[in-house]
Amino acid sequence: MNTEIISVGTELLLGHVTNTDARDVSEQLAKIGVNVLYHTVVGDNPGRLAQCIEIAKQRADLIITTGGLGPTCDDLTKDILAKSFGLELKRDEAEYQKLYDYISARHAYTENNTKQAMLPEGCTVFHNTCGTAPGCAFEKDGITVIMLPGPPKECLAMLRESVVPYLRKRSGEVIVSHSVRIFGIGESGVDDIFADEMNHMVNPSLAPYAKEADCLLQVTAKASTEAEAEAMCLPVIDHIRDRLGEFVYGIDIDSIEEAAFALLREKHATLAFAESCTGGEAAKRLTDLPGASTVFKGGVVTYTNEAKATLLGIDPDVIETEGAVSYEVAAEMAENVRTILNADLGIGVTGLAGPDGDGVHEVGTVFVSLATENETFVKELHLGSFRTRSFIRRMAGNHIYDMLRRYLSGLSVL
Amino acid sequence: MNTEIISVGTELLLGHVTNTDARDVSEQLAKIGVNVLYHTVVGDNPGRLAQCIEIAKQRADLIITTGGLGPTCDDLTKDILAKSFGLELKRDEAEYQKLYDYISARHAYTENNTKQAMLPEGCTVFHNTCGTAPGCAFEKDGITVIMLPGPPKECLAMLRESVVPYLRKRSGEVIVSHSVRIFGIGESGVDDIFADEMNHMVNPSLAPYAKEADCLLQVTAKASTEAEAEAMCLPVIDHIRDRLGEFVYGIDIDSIEEAAFALLREKHATLAFAESCTGGEAAKRLTDLPGASTVFKGGVVTYTNEAKATLLGIDPDVIETEGAVSYEVAAEMAENVRTILNADLGIGVTGLAGPDGDGVHEVGTVFVSLATENETFVKELHLGSFRTRSFIRRMAGNHIYDMLRRYLSGLSVL
Repeated sequence: MNTEIISVGTELLLGHVTNTDARDVSEQLAKIGVNVLYHTVVGDNPGRLAQCIEIAKQRADLIITTGGLGPTCDDLTKDILAKSFGLELKRDEAEYQKLYDYISARHAYTENNTKQAMLPEGCTVFHNTCGTAPGCAFEKDGITVIMLPGPPKECLAMLRESVVPYLRKRSGEVIVSHSVRIFGIGESGVDDIFADEMNHMVNPSLAPYAKEADCLLQVTAKASTEAEAEAMCLPVIDHIRDRLGEFVYGIDIDSIEEAAFALLREKHATLAFAESCTGGEAAKRLTDLPGASTVFKGGVVTYTNEAKATLLGIDPDVIETEGAVSYEVAAEMAENVRTILNADLGIGVTGLAGPDGDGVHEVGTVFVSLATENETFVKELHLGSFRTRSFIRRMAGNHIYDMLRRYLSGLSVL
Repeated sequence: MNTEIISVGTELLLGHVTNTDARDVSEQLAKIGVNVLYHTVVGDNPGRLAQCIEIAKQRADLIITTGGLGPTCDDLTKDILAKSFGLELKRDEAEYQKLYDYISARHAYTENNTKQAMLPEGCTVFHNTCGTAPGCAFEKDGITVIMLPGPPKECLAMLRESVVPYLRKRSGEVIVSHSVRIFGIGESGVDDIFADEMNHMVNPSLAPYAKEADCLLQVTAKASTEAEAEAMCLPVIDHIRDRLGEFVYGIDIDSIEEAAFALLREKHATLAFAESCTGGEAAKRLTDLPGASTVFKGGVVTYTNEAKATLLGIDPDVIETEGAVSYEVAAEMAENVRTILNADLGIGVTGLAGPDGDGVHEVGTVFVSLATENETFVKELHLGSFRTRSFIRRMAGNHIYDMLRRYLSGLSVL
């Protein structure tokens, strides 16, 4: 299927919001092997939207819209699409009832809300589990049309809960996809190792995916049953694990802090942070995860030498002799925060995130450390003086979580 | 001018990256009053890109492309556009020399790099200050074409440094735009106050702009000189200040932490944080700003009651009696961290970011506090049990920086 995603909303054209819906739809579709050829964004303008739909009909057989399903007069996606395909909008009684009950439980029901329950005749209705406007799908003239709500949370939930199953069922085949998360070997390293497989494998397919400070491989298989598709993915994942070994930190998880968090929980280990150049970001990333309080004792952000002395009891002479950005200070930070907060593991991080240097080290020099009851590991990083402050801070955090993961998995930490 | 932005790159269609370039171009153009009607995304495919350009020629008189200017065979934007407009690509000697010098200073120069210096004959060249591939602009058949590099940092720098001045010059008029940043009154409150002005003002124009947990008003004027345009904006900004008073926290800045940071610097005041539910995020936001070390002493993340006792010396009996999420604990956190870190000001934050509650308070209940030498202010927030963990944490941080700003500006803090 060749797909065009049409996102409707003037706020996108004004640059007020980023089109994350198109990315989310693309990502979900790629996982089930559906090909996206175009994204289009158009404002809340009936004439221009109608023209975009005519263009899409010429070049795609699956049209997915996001946005414009709400109750206001700006919300015109359903009207224009129905007209373009010669369909009537009819009130869907089940959706109307849900909508009515939901709204009138909160405040007075106003008639404009009914618009949200008006859907193209004969369509498949997708209930909105995060909001009020339902989505829907229909087939006409050899083209499949799917309409999704604009708010990103609602759009993504409907994609996962309704659209992916709908497309899977229609295709008569099952597509299974797994992401293999990698740390410690760069994108080009992964490309070098798997270039051949990535170019030649079709089903299952193998595709790389690199973002700033992150890297993964996506394995996707199509088959007539889920078990069969899973069985096709398995040897590829095993092959990646064989080749990359301990660089693989997880399958189908979102971040390296999630991998470390799962291991901390499993081992019932507690953790404390002493951060300098990351300024709270490493702790923030762990506490972004619900349930972090089961493993995280707390931390200190010792942004000055004085704070390193006061909060962590680090000898000012050591800072004077070795420098705040040093192996010794990183080691003491991890050791002392571990003791002070009575945690199983202590983490330290001190370095230069830039843009200014300290006259001694290059920007991007960072020491990260992990202290356990019996030993302390310190790693010296050179993350690149040409990198941004935010990259250096994020990458330093990745190294912290990677050290934790390696330690808790029984791998060598350094 | 009616604009279409065409972003070129298969990675966008796979959902690997979000199209922030289109948002950035839209945002910069909106500020100078240029109308964007369409965004299109197409893969690295010559035939489909050529078709997209043909469509754009029919419906836009300014076409801006992002991406596809690099040295690889996937980079085909310039070839296809030049062909579509009947232009030849020629080597730009100045850009070639810069490119050659830059690359050969780092590693061996390979011939494929020269592709980046091949530009449409007669074009205006935009030097890339953040990367190697130059951008350019040309006019043909009544249509203006601008090509920008894909990497977001490069694209945004070229927009600001070259594209905005280029379009301003061509338009023969000067457009000046200012953003008035607001905190403490919601988007709908702002809408209510300024609905009339927003609907009827044309030059200068007044437009709202709301994101999750943030709100601003954009004032834009067109005139024949910059001084004239500035003079037109001024009374509107004054009018907004009159109506919103202390809810205005800054003009043309990016965030509320920037406003607080500027005041801290100006007053030579130092700061320390004691965070519970924000888990390091409040400190992270300050330390995202280069130069934070001039005002930030450090902080503690006391995620457990034990850490509140150990790091801050908070009496466990108080936690027992009042609860960790309480007025008293918030006050002590700010007071104690201020004393311990010898800072002028101490900040405390304790609350429930969810998804789990504590059986006492609703999720979204947060106490934020500010301690000075002589007094302590505590604010109780109810940020909404239906809100996400990330919203609650971000909004709590906004309140922290707003309290700081208000205190340092001599406004009432509560």
